[in-house]
Amino acid sequence: MVNWNEINETAIGWVREAGETIRASFSKTLSIETKSNPNDLVTNIDQETEQFFISKIQSAYPEHKILGEEGFGDKLSSLEGIVWIIDPIDGTMNFVHQQRNFAISIGIYENGVGKIGLIYDVVHDELYHAAEGQGAYMDGVKMPVLDEVKVEEAIIALNATWVIENRRIDHNKLIPLVKKVRGTRSYGTAALEFAYVASGRLDAYLTMRLAPWDVAAGLVLLKEVGGVATTVDGKEINLLEKSSYFVGEKNLHTAVVKDYLQS
Amino acid sequence: MVNWNEINETAIGWVREAGETIRASFSKTLSIETKSNPNDLVTNIDQETEQFFISKIQSAYPEHKILGEEGFGDKLSSLEGIVWIIDPIDGTMNFVHQQRNFAISIGIYENGVGKIGLIYDVVHDELYHAAEGQGAYMDGVKMPVLDEVKVEEAIIALNATWVIENRRIDHNKLIPLVKKVRGTRSYGTAALEFAYVASGRLDAYLTMRLAPWDVAAGLVLLKEVGGVATTVDGKEINLLEKSSYFVGEKNLHTAVVKDYLQS
Repeated sequence: MVNWNEINETAIGWVREAGETIRASFSKTLSIETKSNPNDLVTNIDQETEQFFISKIQSAYPEHKILGEEGFGDKLSSLEGIVWIIDPIDGTMNFVHQQRNFAISIGIYENGVGKIGLIYDVVHDELYHAAEGQGAYMDGVKMPVLDEVKVEEAIIALNATWVIENRRIDHNKLIPLVKKVRGTRSYGTAALEFAYVASGRLDAYLTMRLAPWDVAAGLVLLKEVGGVATTVDGKEINLLEKSSYFVGEKNLHTAVVKDYLQS
Repeated sequence: MVNWNEINETAIGWVREAGETIRASFSKTLSIETKSNPNDLVTNIDQETEQFFISKIQSAYPEHKILGEEGFGDKLSSLEGIVWIIDPIDGTMNFVHQQRNFAISIGIYENGVGKIGLIYDVVHDELYHAAEGQGAYMDGVKMPVLDEVKVEEAIIALNATWVIENRRIDHNKLIPLVKKVRGTRSYGTAALEFAYVASGRLDAYLTMRLAPWDVAAGLVLLKEVGGVATTVDGKEINLLEKSSYFVGEKNLHTAVVKDYLQS
């Protein structure tokens, strides 16, 4: 019998420890060294953080598998067993340019079912957390099930890239949507954009190419508050493949897929 | 002789006091009452905060003038004398939907010259502050003069609205820019977007219609780090009128105006 509560507590402890290390790696003074050589720092911190998690997991749970962005984990062709899906730093461009607006993202799955989702906004020290069937929380405060949102009252996260001609989506579908909604935002970190949808700060989020580690934690959060995630065509997600994503409050999601994305 | 240091210290104290009141006005639990009746709350907190500042200013500095978003201040046709330009809550939509990503913005001008700029990210308790000729600071840490940024390495704040057909700018000018830059973001709060440019987290910010209170503080910050602000056509700003704004690091600003916005 898997003790999910214990795994949960342990994972939260590791995430906070990794966050502390990352915060210590840069000062609040907006280091110029960082920006003059961004790629080195990213490689460094991204990789070190992933290796920290891998070593902890392998030691505590040797039978668990690991899928990580930096590639130090296992090569997986299925989600059988217990799999940790890790993005050590989601929002790398923000990490380098802003030293904020990035997150540690960890989803733990059992036979393809999301059991635990952890998204940690490192700089603001905010932990989004969900366990299957137990609800989603921000810093221990339960987040309510999402209220119905109308398209014209929605705030949607959507990068400007997708509303100009591009090779991933017919931008003409998105133009009437952008004109209809109350507002659009773009934060450049999928994990936090999922967390914002789950906490009702955004009503939906659309993007064209995410990997398993970008979304694994967010999907667990979203499910606990009644949110829905599909491809932009309204199709089921295959978590092991890169995919487009449209996620949001259920009624809004249905309306946007029908009236804009599938039209 | 005006004692700017004293005005500065006093204004910072008021901003922190107002921020505390605003934080107390909502809990971290993402109140549903707030979202079901957003307009009331906005009116309420926006207006109360502006009136708080006006009453403080009129009592301490009866000879100063006040220009405020909510209209409780003076009707001004010039910037003669000392003028406080106040946005009690910049980013009202974020305030209502997110209870974050909004700021108190106060610029203090003397005969049209920016003397003090204060932008306070209320929820994250981060104060951006500048005094003419004394540099710009975040939480007391001096922000460096902005380094040269190339267009292809720039992160620009730009809402998706402006890259689809709209009545304020020929969106065809912006499409090649969005394709060229490293990334775009959109936060929905002009004051914080100015502060992010000043602190180097964004390299530029473009938007089509801002009022004096949206920009008065940000312009003071920007000048202290060597940033440049013009209309999107590269023309001089008239602070008393609503205007388009393109602000950013000096070299980037010059290149973008020449190669994209004026083309």
